[in-house]
Amino acid sequence: MHQTQAYISSNKKRFLDELLDLLSIPSISADSSYNEHVEKCAKKLSKNLRKIGLSNVEIYSTAGHPIVYGEKIIDPKLPTVLIYGHYDVQPADPLDLWDSDPFNPVIRKTQLHPEGAIFARGACDDKGQMFMHVKAVEAMIASEELKCNVKFMIEGEEEVGSENLAIFVKNQKELLDADIILVSDTGMLANDVPSITTGLRGLSYVEVEVTGPNRDLHSGLYGGCVANPINILCDMISQLQNKDLSISIPGFYDQVINLSMEERNEMSKAPFSHDAYCKSIDINDTHGEKDFSTMERGSIRPTLDVNGIWGGYTGEGAKTVIPSKAYAKISMRLVPNQDPEEITRLFCDHFVSIAPDGVRVRVTPHHGGEPAVTPVDSTGYQAASYAYEKSFGKKPIPVRSGGSIPIIAMFEKELGLKTVLMGFGLDSDAIHSPNEHYGLFNFYKGIETIPYFFESFSQLSK
Amino acid sequence: MHQTQAYISSNKKRFLDELLDLLSIPSISADSSYNEHVEKCAKKLSKNLRKIGLSNVEIYSTAGHPIVYGEKIIDPKLPTVLIYGHYDVQPADPLDLWDSDPFNPVIRKTQLHPEGAIFARGACDDKGQMFMHVKAVEAMIASEELKCNVKFMIEGEEEVGSENLAIFVKNQKELLDADIILVSDTGMLANDVPSITTGLRGLSYVEVEVTGPNRDLHSGLYGGCVANPINILCDMISQLQNKDLSISIPGFYDQVINLSMEERNEMSKAPFSHDAYCKSIDINDTHGEKDFSTMERGSIRPTLDVNGIWGGYTGEGAKTVIPSKAYAKISMRLVPNQDPEEITRLFCDHFVSIAPDGVRVRVTPHHGGEPAVTPVDSTGYQAASYAYEKSFGKKPIPVRSGGSIPIIAMFEKELGLKTVLMGFGLDSDAIHSPNEHYGLFNFYKGIETIPYFFESFSQLSK
Repeated sequence: MHQTQAYISSNKKRFLDELLDLLSIPSISADSSYNEHVEKCAKKLSKNLRKIGLSNVEIYSTAGHPIVYGEKIIDPKLPTVLIYGHYDVQPADPLDLWDSDPFNPVIRKTQLHPEGAIFARGACDDKGQMFMHVKAVEAMIASEELKCNVKFMIEGEEEVGSENLAIFVKNQKELLDADIILVSDTGMLANDVPSITTGLRGLSYVEVEVTGPNRDLHSGLYGGCVANPINILCDMISQLQNKDLSISIPGFYDQVINLSMEERNEMSKAPFSHDAYCKSIDINDTHGEKDFSTMERGSIRPTLDVNGIWGGYTGEGAKTVIPSKAYAKISMRLVPNQDPEEITRLFCDHFVSIAPDGVRVRVTPHHGGEPAVTPVDSTGYQAASYAYEKSFGKKPIPVRSGGSIPIIAMFEKELGLKTVLMGFGLDSDAIHSPNEHYGLFNFYKGIETIPYFFESFSQLSK
Repeated sequence: MHQTQAYISSNKKRFLDELLDLLSIPSISADSSYNEHVEKCAKKLSKNLRKIGLSNVEIYSTAGHPIVYGEKIIDPKLPTVLIYGHYDVQPADPLDLWDSDPFNPVIRKTQLHPEGAIFARGACDDKGQMFMHVKAVEAMIASEELKCNVKFMIEGEEEVGSENLAIFVKNQKELLDADIILVSDTGMLANDVPSITTGLRGLSYVEVEVTGPNRDLHSGLYGGCVANPINILCDMISQLQNKDLSISIPGFYDQVINLSMEERNEMSKAPFSHDAYCKSIDINDTHGEKDFSTMERGSIRPTLDVNGIWGGYTGEGAKTVIPSKAYAKISMRLVPNQDPEEITRLFCDHFVSIAPDGVRVRVTPHHGGEPAVTPVDSTGYQAASYAYEKSFGKKPIPVRSGGSIPIIAMFEKELGLKTVLMGFGLDSDAIHSPNEHYGLFNFYKGIETIPYFFESFSQLSK
């Protein structure tokens, strides 16, 4: 990859300018008044894909925003890497908290980015990270060092749920035929601590309603005699966890694939400061399932959190009421190989079963999402690991993320493909927040790292 | 009391007309735009007190609405009955739910009141019940059968907290010197089941705040790692009650005076239908402390109810947030001889002590109220029991009410006097609600019963 790296080195300025150009388009997918900008961004992107030498470049329209596609087929017999990314961005509100115009990108130095960072909406999520792949592929094509096929699928609705992408993927299985999916839409631990996200948690989300008497009652006259829906709801929520803070729903852990000690040992190498963690959110201690570290609790273990609760009198002062109803929103983060629908069913059955006489319970499921995992012994992970080691000079740490990206599971289900998550962002990059930025170091390092992935993946897939 | 009863019998029509006259004045204490009506009502009442032959009739002005006073001192050496009542009423809203004008009293028959009932705001609470005493005393004076002294203290701020009454009582201990306080501001079980309220519960009311992280967190990234304030609050609330639904706060029951089996047996004679009770509020079963009946749970046992709870995302749909804070309003009904301030302190200490690491807890006390009790072996109770038996032909049942009337404890504290609660209203009289009414049977029966109390109390106090 000498030619490729040399090409990258001598085109850095232009790569940056092209990214800044993309960032100046307010391609906000959630707000229909920006529709023409979203379309403009898709067009500019497709033009760039054509310019770097891809064929079959096309803007596929959907019921929502279009999907940009392009490919470079060296030889149908060679392995194919499908690159996924998105060109749409989050809204920029609240605008007054930005130090500069979110769609007029500027470079400023920060403590974590002494070489400078690009401040703009979408800088990290995901235009900056997606565009690294476009430029890395350009460099490989120009240097004639691309040793496998590559396909790009860049959508415009990631920030609004990727509904039309799911339809596109179902309908275009032949077009999207590949050996691995490569995505840069996550982060790494630090600029000197490369890491690869090997897992994402799934999600089951329910709303519960506990009904006691058919009307609000006076707590003096009825207090002590009837089941108070709030007390009952609290009691039922409390019962959902055991003393060791594991989850008490029967069957909840049945499908969980426990990590090997080797994998856990590998994970534990990630730098983690308990004190810094607590200090950053002003708590005096962490709190979680017995016998697991904080990093593990937040990634390889399923959880149960109440996201909202309400019932009775919540105004100023005191009112002595026993309310008729109490409500809560409860979500469970799931790990491989838990099935969200199955978990939701287990929750419903259990929750209804622990309701005492005197109340009625209703559970309403909200959306869910499947967990995803990239085994560290897979070809994709090995290739990514090689790539990071080559460009950073040290082996990356496999990291399980606590969050959920449901499309990753959808890719696996529809296309039968594993995804490698080569993220280069930092947690401090303020994605979805004012002053989103992306380090120049990260942008260039990403472009330099990606070709090594292609190199290794071609080799290992032989 | 033959003369007295004959006098009552021949003056029924006028007694009713005078009450209707009082009821036509909208003496709403909570709304200052009705101030002149409140004052008019006080004047009309004081005029009536003078007319029936009381002396020292005076309208004592306060920082709020005035207190009407009057007395009949037969002989300073004889015992004195202090009658308390109130001439102010609740607001009449919502007006459109009334079948007739709340301040234009009409007589209509109902299923429970085949002889007719007076429909008007204040008919039962408390003009109708208070005025029974005025007319009963009139009859005794006119018939020369009053055998002890009587004093009236009728306030105009009961519906807004009796703050100025408390000041008046503190400052007028000599004026109010008596042997017993007599009040008709409660109810009885049914027109053919006379009962006497022998106890009122006290109240301790607190608001709790549980703080976890210093900002709302993403439940994917932090779920499982940090104490979620809602889960913790639910768990802490759940811990406030034991499995048998007794309250787990250390020391909570230390001062509770347990009723004798004799008293409990007496109470259990009150008619109670579990099925009708459940049906009336659409529950499939009652729910409360082990080894106590529903009637007991709602009266002679202290309780703990969450009156309101809130935290996190409570809008439509799903949001995966771990909130920074969660809140609840919690009240405890207290029984003799629990001290609200002591109970509040015990609650605070306990609640803070059960908070796990990872959260901070704040408890803010709201207003409280002391419990009150009238022993069934007291002279006052015995006299009241005699009176009911005489006029209803059957012994009344002692009933502990679950509600709180803080002024009763205040009377005992300031004046050293026990109160006898001779209520003649029914639960179905819709006090504080649209279509408040008071049975003609109850109004007249009250006037007939009260003289027997005076007769017996004079006898027993000799």
